[in-house]
Amino acid sequence: MTIENLSCNKSFDGWHKQYSHYSETLNCSMRFAIYLPPQTSSGGKVPALYWLSGLTCTDENFMQKGGAQRIAAELGMAIIAPDTSPRGDEVADDDGYDLGKGAGFYVNASQAPWNRHYRMYDYVLNELPQLIEAMFPVSDKRAIAGHSMGGHGALVIALRNPERYRSVSAFSPISNPVNCPWGKKAFSAYLGKNTDSWASYDASLLMRQTDAKVPALVDQGEADDFLVEQLKPEMLEAAARANDYPLELHGRDGYDHSYYFIASFIEQHLRFHARHLGL
Amino acid sequence: MTIENLSCNKSFDGWHKQYSHYSETLNCSMRFAIYLPPQTSSGGKVPALYWLSGLTCTDENFMQKGGAQRIAAELGMAIIAPDTSPRGDEVADDDGYDLGKGAGFYVNASQAPWNRHYRMYDYVLNELPQLIEAMFPVSDKRAIAGHSMGGHGALVIALRNPERYRSVSAFSPISNPVNCPWGKKAFSAYLGKNTDSWASYDASLLMRQTDAKVPALVDQGEADDFLVEQLKPEMLEAAARANDYPLELHGRDGYDHSYYFIASFIEQHLRFHARHLGL
Repeated sequence: MTIENLSCNKSFDGWHKQYSHYSETLNCSMRFAIYLPPQTSSGGKVPALYWLSGLTCTDENFMQKGGAQRIAAELGMAIIAPDTSPRGDEVADDDGYDLGKGAGFYVNASQAPWNRHYRMYDYVLNELPQLIEAMFPVSDKRAIAGHSMGGHGALVIALRNPERYRSVSAFSPISNPVNCPWGKKAFSAYLGKNTDSWASYDASLLMRQTDAKVPALVDQGEADDFLVEQLKPEMLEAAARANDYPLELHGRDGYDHSYYFIASFIEQHLRFHARHLGL
Repeated sequence: MTIENLSCNKSFDGWHKQYSHYSETLNCSMRFAIYLPPQTSSGGKVPALYWLSGLTCTDENFMQKGGAQRIAAELGMAIIAPDTSPRGDEVADDDGYDLGKGAGFYVNASQAPWNRHYRMYDYVLNELPQLIEAMFPVSDKRAIAGHSMGGHGALVIALRNPERYRSVSAFSPISNPVNCPWGKKAFSAYLGKNTDSWASYDASLLMRQTDAKVPALVDQGEADDFLVEQLKPEMLEAAARANDYPLELHGRDGYDHSYYFIASFIEQHLRFHARHLGL
């Protein structure tokens, strides 16, 4: 396991760093960012929040615009932000912003040409935390969160692996991808026309059935242009109600889909995760 | 005076908005961003912090990466971020990132071809606040701040117009532009080879001579790659000492020139301005 440091910025007395590494899961070189709070400089391990970004994003959007470092530094929490898809000239792509590079949808693709590289589910669940926990002063106490496509990814990964995450949160997640245009397009390409395989990547379907229940927090802006057609938080809410799932869902009057919304409420998300991580 | 709204995002219970307008000073269409804290929704006027960005920036960098809205919302302070130069196809430009568009240096150019549009000093000092105070619930209690080239601009504008600003602050300012490569290149182009005219745009020279003293706060990262060759905070410090100027200058161990540095200390800057604005 080798990683290459690409950048390093002091931030709230801790460090924001970018790294590249060769991913065996994705068969390509990948970049991720990590925020190491000041508590790590004494050598102790800190819990980790994995952040999954949305369509078109990279490891940079959340680190630059989310405003999370201040609170992570106070709490003693690492934040890890992977890229949103495999990358590189040899990786299959599509002209749309919502398929291919920048749009991995955190699934393991079964269909050609996508199945050669697009295995973001396995990457985020297994390879990335193994690397992080081996190479950094970061413990295996994990929380996971994300925005939009990344909110979908965070919910799906936590719902399917409750033993691996203490808590999950999302901003504006694609809550029911099997029933929205973004999800149908991506799942058709990555998973194929047979929709049987889609259910294991749909947060609302998973939340309705799961027995093990990772505490979940979701914030949704009510002025979000994607709310009705793409995001459908009401499906997640109905699933939680039907299964007595511990979901805390907030509709936020006037807020949109942007990072201005995320920055406004990220402190509440980090404090939610801190409680479940024992901080 | 007409302005066109380009975008609007709710942020910490207030509003981030972008506008375009035709600038008579710059002879071109200009864009600016404004953060209106929640206190303005009841119609009351709030004091304003004008933020001047650095080389290559637009109105967006500080609003997206600075993390200032949280504190501005708490304090009840508007933030106005202009662009860093005139813009448009008809505006003179240069291949370098440090001259022309994105690099107005907050001066009034006297030399062709720059003198047709490059009058950012007058724009920031006069036209922009007149427009803001006429069109928004923002009072004439003003503070001014900036980063790098914008730190230079903020210091120069406050030092030459102490009756117009209650306080000034800067991150990593170009403190002595007549003596650094960035400043010499820009001033040669905009102001001409005769260096007599340069002194009125040099914060260290102005601070050494002024009688009226706007309280000033400067933060400088000690791991800033531009520190020694371009920024020269020691010249500002020497000027303040010689003239008994109320300058609070902090060197910050390990911090660089990036917005990760700005975000780490922006709260202290806003609270400094709030004290002088009577908030």
